[in-house]
Amino acid sequence: MTFDAIFVPEKISAAVSDRAWIEAMLEVERALVNAEALAGVVPAHLAGSIAEACRIESFDVDAIGAAGRSAGNPAEPLVRALREVVGGEAAGYVHYGATSQDIVDSAAMLVSRRALELVGDELEGVAAACAALAAAHRLTLMAGRTLLQQAVPTTFGLKAAGWLVAIVAARARLRELRSRLPSQLGGAAGTLAAMGADGVTVAGFFAAELELQKPVVPWHSDRGRMAELGSALSVAAASCAKIGLDVALLEQTEVGEVREPAGPGASSTMPHKRNPVGSAIAIACARRVSGAAGVLESGLVVEHERALGAWQAEWGALSDALAYAGGAAAAIRGVLESLEVDAGRMLHNLEAAGGGVMSERVLFMLARRVGYANAKQAVAGAVARAAESGGTLRDSLAGDLTAEELVEAFDPGTYLGSACEFVDAALSYYRRPGR
Amino acid sequence: MTFDAIFVPEKISAAVSDRAWIEAMLEVERALVNAEALAGVVPAHLAGSIAEACRIESFDVDAIGAAGRSAGNPAEPLVRALREVVGGEAAGYVHYGATSQDIVDSAAMLVSRRALELVGDELEGVAAACAALAAAHRLTLMAGRTLLQQAVPTTFGLKAAGWLVAIVAARARLRELRSRLPSQLGGAAGTLAAMGADGVTVAGFFAAELELQKPVVPWHSDRGRMAELGSALSVAAASCAKIGLDVALLEQTEVGEVREPAGPGASSTMPHKRNPVGSAIAIACARRVSGAAGVLESGLVVEHERALGAWQAEWGALSDALAYAGGAAAAIRGVLESLEVDAGRMLHNLEAAGGGVMSERVLFMLARRVGYANAKQAVAGAVARAAESGGTLRDSLAGDLTAEELVEAFDPGTYLGSACEFVDAALSYYRRPGR
Amino acid sequence: MTFDAIFVPEKISAAVSDRAWIEAMLEVERALVNAEALAGVVPAHLAGSIAEACRIESFDVDAIGAAGRSAGNPAEPLVRALREVVGGEAAGYVHYGATSQDIVDSAAMLVSRRALELVGDELEGVAAACAALAAAHRLTLMAGRTLLQQAVPTTFGLKAAGWLVAIVAARARLRELRSRLPSQLGGAAGTLAAMGADGVTVAGFFAAELELQKPVVPWHSDRGRMAELGSALSVAAASCAKIGLDVALLEQTEVGEVREPAGPGASSTMPHKRNPVGSAIAIACARRVSGAAGVLESGLVVEHERALGAWQAEWGALSDALAYAGGAAAAIRGVLESLEVDAGRMLHNLEAAGGGVMSERVLFMLARRVGYANAKQAVAGAVARAAESGGTLRDSLAGDLTAEELVEAFDPGTYLGSACEFVDAALSYYRRPGR
Amino acid sequence: MTFDAIFVPEKISAAVSDRAWIEAMLEVERALVNAEALAGVVPAHLAGSIAEACRIESFDVDAIGAAGRSAGNPAEPLVRALREVVGGEAAGYVHYGATSQDIVDSAAMLVSRRALELVGDELEGVAAACAALAAAHRLTLMAGRTLLQQAVPTTFGLKAAGWLVAIVAARARLRELRSRLPSQLGGAAGTLAAMGADGVTVAGFFAAELELQKPVVPWHSDRGRMAELGSALSVAAASCAKIGLDVALLEQTEVGEVREPAGPGASSTMPHKRNPVGSAIAIACARRVSGAAGVLESGLVVEHERALGAWQAEWGALSDALAYAGGAAAAIRGVLESLEVDAGRMLHNLEAAGGGVMSERVLFMLARRVGYANAKQAVAGAVARAAESGGTLRDSLAGDLTAEELVEAFDPGTYLGSACEFVDAALSYYRRPGR
Repeated sequence: MTFDAIFVPEKISAAVSDRAWIEAMLEVERALVNAEALAGVVPAHLAGSIAEACRIESFDVDAIGAAGRSAGNPAEPLVRALREVVGGEAAGYVHYGATSQDIVDSAAMLVSRRALELVGDELEGVAAACAALAAAHRLTLMAGRTLLQQAVPTTFGLKAAGWLVAIVAARARLRELRSRLPSQLGGAAGTLAAMGADGVTVAGFFAAELELQKPVVPWHSDRGRMAELGSALSVAAASCAKIGLDVALLEQTEVGEVREPAGPGASSTMPHKRNPVGSAIAIACARRVSGAAGVLESGLVVEHERALGAWQAEWGALSDALAYAGGAAAAIRGVLESLEVDAGRMLHNLEAAGGGVMSERVLFMLARRVGYANAKQAVAGAVARAAESGGTLRDSLAGDLTAEELVEAFDPGTYLGSACEFVDAALSYYRRPGR
Repeated sequence: MTFDAIFVPEKISAAVSDRAWIEAMLEVERALVNAEALAGVVPAHLAGSIAEACRIESFDVDAIGAAGRSAGNPAEPLVRALREVVGGEAAGYVHYGATSQDIVDSAAMLVSRRALELVGDELEGVAAACAALAAAHRLTLMAGRTLLQQAVPTTFGLKAAGWLVAIVAARARLRELRSRLPSQLGGAAGTLAAMGADGVTVAGFFAAELELQKPVVPWHSDRGRMAELGSALSVAAASCAKIGLDVALLEQTEVGEVREPAGPGASSTMPHKRNPVGSAIAIACARRVSGAAGVLESGLVVEHERALGAWQAEWGALSDALAYAGGAAAAIRGVLESLEVDAGRMLHNLEAAGGGVMSERVLFMLARRVGYANAKQAVAGAVARAAESGGTLRDSLAGDLTAEELVEAFDPGTYLGSACEFVDAALSYYRRPGR
Repeated sequence: MTFDAIFVPEKISAAVSDRAWIEAMLEVERALVNAEALAGVVPAHLAGSIAEACRIESFDVDAIGAAGRSAGNPAEPLVRALREVVGGEAAGYVHYGATSQDIVDSAAMLVSRRALELVGDELEGVAAACAALAAAHRLTLMAGRTLLQQAVPTTFGLKAAGWLVAIVAARARLRELRSRLPSQLGGAAGTLAAMGADGVTVAGFFAAELELQKPVVPWHSDRGRMAELGSALSVAAASCAKIGLDVALLEQTEVGEVREPAGPGASSTMPHKRNPVGSAIAIACARRVSGAAGVLESGLVVEHERALGAWQAEWGALSDALAYAGGAAAAIRGVLESLEVDAGRMLHNLEAAGGGVMSERVLFMLARRVGYANAKQAVAGAVARAAESGGTLRDSLAGDLTAEELVEAFDPGTYLGSACEFVDAALSYYRRPGR
Repeated sequence: MTFDAIFVPEKISAAVSDRAWIEAMLEVERALVNAEALAGVVPAHLAGSIAEACRIESFDVDAIGAAGRSAGNPAEPLVRALREVVGGEAAGYVHYGATSQDIVDSAAMLVSRRALELVGDELEGVAAACAALAAAHRLTLMAGRTLLQQAVPTTFGLKAAGWLVAIVAARARLRELRSRLPSQLGGAAGTLAAMGADGVTVAGFFAAELELQKPVVPWHSDRGRMAELGSALSVAAASCAKIGLDVALLEQTEVGEVREPAGPGASSTMPHKRNPVGSAIAIACARRVSGAAGVLESGLVVEHERALGAWQAEWGALSDALAYAGGAAAAIRGVLESLEVDAGRMLHNLEAAGGGVMSERVLFMLARRVGYANAKQAVAGAVARAAESGGTLRDSLAGDLTAEELVEAFDPGTYLGSACEFVDAALSYYRRPGR
């Protein structure tokens, strides 16, 4: 609610605005009456005039929102307003046989479909940027770090490949959920009673009109989909935030391996600072998605045929989850698309730590000769001597390995294992047809 | 973000709007320069012109929000805009020695103070309504229900007294936190270095100007207060939602012991329905507060002297927590202030269940005569017989108790234990001086 | 941690116990060395003796847990213990080229696979019970209730069908996730460097040995799967809890439409009470799953190649999510498998409300004759008159409808719309081949 | 549930074990009957034999837990077992007039009181270690870092002082809550009906026996306290985790300013690594507390006089919150008590960044001479030149400042502002009498 312009691109904010919701609700009323005309439940000529009236221009978005307070939902005042706009005999066929939740839920799916497209676009951008980095830096040596300690060498390409796989998976899940967004039409309590024998037929046409999936049964009080959507958006946003965290960690003054694009991030009083602003925004957005997803995920345990409060809490939570997920993706896309990578510094950091990062390799080299237990003892001793003397692990191992072995042992470029294959696997996963 | 007008009174929405935040930020900049003038850090005449310039009318709220995207916070563009408005030599003293987080955090406290007052007013209204119900229905018999089953008799007054105590406690906690809202002034990394030796002096004047509490040390990366505020708002909102749930349960068609005020809650197609709209809104609001509070509570584990993302996620979460807490309280206040209580139906429901609700008393009466184990067996037998025959527990106990005993045993009005004393205790707690 | 026996069937508790984890870890070490032998990385005869040693009987489960404190994970002490058991030259090939996280993550997948089978069995039981109820009560009339108010008639079969669809969907999602559980093998920082050129080959054999899916790249710091699993378990548990809530609401003293099986739920002092114990347990379990899922879902934003704390928090959270999801399903299965349904009471409640539940039908009947607006006014008037006089809606409509129309209007059995078709659709969905 | 020995000291685990809960429940039954004897509700000699029987040795902890499944709580089987142990006439006075929730809730408070003492001890240890570091490193220069970038100089003492203040505040909140833990005694539905006119008297004696606070009214369905406790434990644990994160960040290979104590943290295959194990454990624990606190905080919106599921979910969540909070504190205490601080490296890092960390000071120095706007431009230019040339900010400012000014400008030791005063304020806050 506060300073959203900092976090969410305007296009995405617009896609989940009250105006967008009400437009979607009108689209739903139009689809409903069209479906009912097709099924012969509503006379075609009356249906036509209702469908015609479902135009956002005829309605006062703010007034409908405010009027929703007394009914506890925005559909009731919208229907009232629509009946007034329509007038005459046709007014009686507005919203015919439907319940408020039918309209709001179906509209929520339309809003989600549109917003998910935008979120998906941003995620595609993130994936493309990750893929480009993975390919370009397939062989760019850097330290692999576990628990924030240098562990063994890796490549920046593999790091980006790891990001890529997470983003592609998150994107695939959202795409799948988007393709299965269901229409909602159950009437007052899920039986479509007011439509007599035509309910199922109308529901079929209705889903087709909206190009939404026809659900097995109305899902007024089966909110698993909302929870799944919330969770998937949270995973997507968090996958972006994970990239942001890695970038910001690499960007630390003492690490300096990457930099976010220049320009943003200026500090008002510290001219030298280039803050990881995009990363921070992505992380902040992911935290907001998580909060919103929690609201959606806690909304399943509801009363009978319609929830008392849990449903009403969904609308804003869904909008927030969509908007901030888009915000996280857009921010990290911006970061990655013009990320400055300092390969020299990566190599420097790898070597500066005195060779410790190669200790695993040394251990295995020695183990082949003296057995694992002896090797472990020898390397531990060398590590301790190096720490004590302030020297390098390499120097303190001079007695244990030949000069030639030392060269091999401390060459990170030959201790990458399957890094390149993993990069290639990630790129294939990203580029696979029909993804 | 969506259909907030349904959930939050306009006054409270306004108190947490971007405009309100920016007004608060300007108030903070004014207090800063005034404090610096008092401490001799900024020449008084320049300070005066800066303080003068801190008027919301001179700034474009939306533009500042949008510009905040590149810095990752709204203070940087506001300071830039303020410097432009001030111009000349004085411009160099705008925001002197402060950091963006000083401004935003202090503003957050001002926003909280104002919004907490409004939330508090609503809670006072809720408490007053609870107290009135407790007093009026001190002796109104109804079924006490545990795990949704009738257990033993209670009074509606005691139920309302229970609500009252929860609301008063939640209110007290919010009041306490409100009285301890701290100013924030630490400069770039919490040392106030740019103010030389005058930092602590300025910080003292600054807190006094804003009438906020001076913290022990800057709290840029100590966010316990935010978590506490979130938790307290969540407890307050949930305490309102608990009332809403009880009301809606009592309002069930089959129970019918209370009704929310007429008017709202109309169903568009079911004229007989009077939905518990206020209760649903309160519950929905509480769920949103919980989501927002979760964001605030997860924001403590932050990096060094300023968080990477967790801080930036707080602004909207704080606004949401405040707004929806106010929404929950306002909704339930509306419900309680014109709640229709049907004492006749309460008594009817108590008696309709065939006397089962008195089984505990019967057990204890019998136990005095035949011992606990025998009594338990006897009553269990009677319950079973009643269930089998479809008769009442009273009838099936006719052989175990005398006619006189039966009258006593099944008179709920004489089996209220300490109910009245508890009501009185709750009212005293509510009315105690200096609450 | 507390009184788990109340909530979780022993078999499921056992499947996520420390012992089960350590057994799984040993299975992983065995698979690793077998894979390495196949790839020629470890001499076959040494591999054989290692694989042989991977038997839970040789290890002290508690001691390994306690020893894990100093390494921050249980794999390190297990590997040390395994090396001791193996001894000699082979000891150097124990855990060869792997990292602790490889072992714990792969073990987590094995534990999940086993526990998900048990959870799935319980969910199948729930689904079967729902399906039986849906089929048996396809035509059992009852009130549909929205916002806890009677709305229009429905059938108990449709209510059960709604539960069924939710359970089947949740089950399908868990089954899908179960079929895609991945192995984990990346070595120290995800490159499998210690295996030289054989890493990918070993990883392939390793996944095959464990019958787990081979991931695109190691997922040490890509925890989307864990979040998805948590979310899916939470949805499954909450779907059970939703049933529990409905059952408990129907079981209310004043509603009395269903009863949980006799026996359990006895109150110590109120012999008449039959508490909805199974429902309460299911709801409690779902709340615990939600808490655990939250931990899993918040674990994505992690540092570089291995998380600092987020990973370590997963183990217990995963166990809890699995165990309590199983607990929720088992509890609600028990409830449904011997649920007593009182169709007479359902009909009684439907009719007792004075016909209000038919007001939608009346509205549509009248609307056909006098237009929607007039009809709405007429019914609203009748509702008001009925409320005032204490009479029924039917009586107060006597002037507006003919006697014949009145009979039709107030016959709930002819106002079920598509209820039966929805029941059939749900049953087909449940029974579809290959589900 | 999984590998708790890694995370939680044994003493704390024991304090929240099923055994500890059942011991507490027996203590509650003893206090109840003693109070009833004092009030004359139970004959003194019978009370004595009941009180006598309340000894853990007579009960089978596991069997009671298992038996609790059918009643949905552990009190019912414990009471049954206690009645059997007591036998005879006295058996009828066991648990007289109380309800299961009275016993479990009061026991929860006893368990909390004991566990909070242990958690508090650990937090005192953390505070003492922070205070020692703050005092010892009051003048130890290091870089202040915001958004993970070096900002301006600070001292390690001030960083520790910030930790200290957060810990002391969290500790104070827990102590306050501990001092207000309430007894619970309401009987079947909160009226103490079975005690006739003596309920309030008994409740008073009961609270006194247990040395718990007497609540205004029974709080069976007012769970604000549980939420507050959860939140406070979460804040305490997260405050420990924040220290852990800072430590681990400082411990990064490239930063190297502190080290966790030697010994733990050994990697099985990378002899050079010294993992920040204690920090990781503290962070993991805090995440678990957060999950458990979420369960407690979501438990307020409950039904009527006793919750359906929310209450039952509290027991384990409370135990978890207490245990992992203790685990977080114990882990970070261990880290801090033998933390190795490398002041030389701190200074080195401060200087190595090329003087950028002093840019704010330079800006203010220049501003005094040429005005703020000009100064900002000049410093920005110098920063850019330094970045381009790879030189230092100091060198590129040689034309703007005199040699003397340059010395002053780039001496971090004279740009600490109020750092020392803040350290002193934190220490005073810690040492204030009666804290």
